[in-house]
Amino acid sequence: MKHVEQWDFLEVTLEGPGEGNPFLEVEFGARFRFGHRTIDVDGFYDGDGVYKTRFMPDAQGEWSYVTRSNREELDGREGTFVCIAPAEGNRGPVHVERKFHFAYGDGAPYFQFGTTCYAWAHQGDELEELTLKTLAKAPFNKMRMCVFPKHYSYNKNEPEFYPFARDEEGKIDLTRFSPAFWSHFETRLGQLRDLGVEADLILFHPYDRWGHAEMEAEEDDRYLRYAVARLAAYRNVWWSMANEYDLMKAKSMADWDRFFKIVQEADPYQRLRGVHNCRGFYDHAKPWVTHSSIQRSDLERVGEWRRQYGKPVVVDECCYEGNIEHGWGNISAQEMVHRFWLGTVQGGYVGHGETYLHPEDILWWSKGGVLHGQSPERIAFLRKIVEEGPAEGLEPVAGGLAGGFPCVGRAPDYYLAYFGIKQPAKLVLNLPDDGKYRVEAIDTWEMKVEVCVEGVSGKCEIPFAGKPYMAVRACRAE
Amino acid sequence: MKHVEQWDFLEVTLEGPGEGNPFLEVEFGARFRFGHRTIDVDGFYDGDGVYKTRFMPDAQGEWSYVTRSNREELDGREGTFVCIAPAEGNRGPVHVERKFHFAYGDGAPYFQFGTTCYAWAHQGDELEELTLKTLAKAPFNKMRMCVFPKHYSYNKNEPEFYPFARDEEGKIDLTRFSPAFWSHFETRLGQLRDLGVEADLILFHPYDRWGHAEMEAEEDDRYLRYAVARLAAYRNVWWSMANEYDLMKAKSMADWDRFFKIVQEADPYQRLRGVHNCRGFYDHAKPWVTHSSIQRSDLERVGEWRRQYGKPVVVDECCYEGNIEHGWGNISAQEMVHRFWLGTVQGGYVGHGETYLHPEDILWWSKGGVLHGQSPERIAFLRKIVEEGPAEGLEPVAGGLAGGFPCVGRAPDYYLAYFGIKQPAKLVLNLPDDGKYRVEAIDTWEMKVEVCVEGVSGKCEIPFAGKPYMAVRACRAE
Repeated sequence: MKHVEQWDFLEVTLEGPGEGNPFLEVEFGARFRFGHRTIDVDGFYDGDGVYKTRFMPDAQGEWSYVTRSNREELDGREGTFVCIAPAEGNRGPVHVERKFHFAYGDGAPYFQFGTTCYAWAHQGDELEELTLKTLAKAPFNKMRMCVFPKHYSYNKNEPEFYPFARDEEGKIDLTRFSPAFWSHFETRLGQLRDLGVEADLILFHPYDRWGHAEMEAEEDDRYLRYAVARLAAYRNVWWSMANEYDLMKAKSMADWDRFFKIVQEADPYQRLRGVHNCRGFYDHAKPWVTHSSIQRSDLERVGEWRRQYGKPVVVDECCYEGNIEHGWGNISAQEMVHRFWLGTVQGGYVGHGETYLHPEDILWWSKGGVLHGQSPERIAFLRKIVEEGPAEGLEPVAGGLAGGFPCVGRAPDYYLAYFGIKQPAKLVLNLPDDGKYRVEAIDTWEMKVEVCVEGVSGKCEIPFAGKPYMAVRACRAE
Repeated sequence: MKHVEQWDFLEVTLEGPGEGNPFLEVEFGARFRFGHRTIDVDGFYDGDGVYKTRFMPDAQGEWSYVTRSNREELDGREGTFVCIAPAEGNRGPVHVERKFHFAYGDGAPYFQFGTTCYAWAHQGDELEELTLKTLAKAPFNKMRMCVFPKHYSYNKNEPEFYPFARDEEGKIDLTRFSPAFWSHFETRLGQLRDLGVEADLILFHPYDRWGHAEMEAEEDDRYLRYAVARLAAYRNVWWSMANEYDLMKAKSMADWDRFFKIVQEADPYQRLRGVHNCRGFYDHAKPWVTHSSIQRSDLERVGEWRRQYGKPVVVDECCYEGNIEHGWGNISAQEMVHRFWLGTVQGGYVGHGETYLHPEDILWWSKGGVLHGQSPERIAFLRKIVEEGPAEGLEPVAGGLAGGFPCVGRAPDYYLAYFGIKQPAKLVLNLPDDGKYRVEAIDTWEMKVEVCVEGVSGKCEIPFAGKPYMAVRACRAE
């Protein structure tokens, strides 16, 4: 019997009709069964008379399935498989945990440290493989990336593959998907998964010259269902309804609500769902939104957004480290690192991107390639600090550790406060009266941790660094 | 006949009753006359049977006066004097000009570059003289300072002089002012004037242990009238109703309105009037407020406050350069300079202060002394840049010079944009199509100006510094 790792997926492949337009005419899917549970999954047409359905089992043991279709040759086909223990490195899909945080399927915490390469999967093998090589050594565990190709400054090249079929004159047929595109895209998705990188898939975006931003409602909805049918079984998928949804003039708020509901209904695994703004936020409190996906530069407001929406806050875009002419693409590495820390000590998660001018216009934020900036290694350092902290995630600590400065942690065991541009040469710490604490100074730029004092408790005054971009960590030792 | 410089003041001194409580019982003042104009001025009791009235003439020529009093010996005394041309350095009092800016009496622009030494005039001669020596070389042309002594962290010493009389046990008599205090205070005020430093006199503040923050209404009002009678004739006086008015729990909004109106009515010269907040702003749109006096750190909102109140915006307090434990007193020099630039390129004015730990607790922000920080020389550099600009003051330029970045100037002759933490290595400038411009890169931290390109116009792309804290200036050359 076929073996499938837990959180990996089974692919059922059948031969069926190839004539007419199977994308419109053929219904295909399967019902998976595990003991008393049944899960209905949509399949998809993969061209050349081939039909597939993919399924990610979430429990170990024997599963069975039966297909369903409006075509006899695809209907009622049965099979079984055994779901076995996940291999090392397969920790399952990420979900919301403890209201404001995330965890993997196996319960391990997932601390989001994202980056952005919108169109990296549309750049051809050479550059795409370079991007994967870079990611293998980078500190990022999430990638924001577009399904559709992108048309924007520094990214005007044609993609190798197109999501929809095109005739010989290049005219796009929105009723037919292009399996070659999707297959290629899935390869990249699987490679990210194998690197431990979540893929925040951007389903729509405004930077378009092919018509993908202005399809009819029926086309939008068919596209969404096709994308979910193909991609949802990849455990590293997150759904982002859009990049800068509010810049897509052809869509109304009702469209966005409908898109969320289609994905919510079609996705058997309930992967994370969000939508990314340019200016005004979508109402992240709506029930189909799993987390607040935010573009903003004022990271000191993360705490406010947590309270407002009651969900994890992921500031995917807080400007990009770089030096281009646009204000959103030329913050310094120091400012990027500062924003990561600011978001972290408010109980949120932050995303990176990089836009350094390049002789061939290969800017990481759009095309991937290699990283040139100085923030990634500091983000790696922050990630290490966070991973050394409580597995439950960092929660704002009322009253803080050092009066007035933002502080997160888990009282009374762990506190992390960050001073940003402030440069105190003296701290007055408010530690609990019982317990002994080790207090450390963290230089967020130099990536150094130094013990300030050990065995202290209660209110105590300590000399401190007197320079900016420092944090302080207090851990209960006994 | 006595000669008095324009914008200097005449002091008329008379002998009168010394018995009883002249502060309560004796009314004294004078009517000054210049051609068809008459100006009524309050006098004050200076102790030891001495009564004075001070008057600042604003027009050159012959003036006359006649005193008035409820005591015969002080009533109906006449005199004349000649108002002569001001000496060099005497440019007259500062007033609001062109809605959002300031100018001196002689019409020269006054660009506010303030600092703060709340209690410097209560520190004894040695330190006070050191402060004056420091100011003589510093870039500041305004000082925020308290009339009343101050009780707060790093400032708990007793003052040498007290504003009210005290008996042998130190009990304060709020019905009697202490002339020695006022005379000393006036000396310091005159010394600031002679250094070209405006004195933003803080009339009330919450940091008190002597009872000055909790006087009865009658005592408050008498104090205000006495202060105005004594001090208004100094041309460098500005009236600040309070530092952090909203922290003074004993006062209501009606009290603040009344204080403004008392000062407005009593001050014959209509010196500038403002009030400084801690959290919520006083409504600076009220008619008796001449400018918005603001404590905030988010200088990017200066433009919003200009529009909201329709008056000059002076952010007197945007945190202090220093390294103490309090978040308001430990920003870096770089951040202080950054905030000055941010406020400037929004069409506002900014104030400085410094709080470095000191072995004897002599922190500039409270006691004066010497400056230790690195921001003053950069503020001097900014002041020079502003002074080289249009005399009319810097106004926000809609659309800006380099898309999205704040820009001020006077179109089409002068533009100044600032990039703050952004580090573009390339700018796309939107210059007017006619005219040739010289474009310069300004390094706000290194204090350097370098020509980028000359003779350009219209939309043009130029390489730029690619590092943070840079500004760009474009001046029309022909």
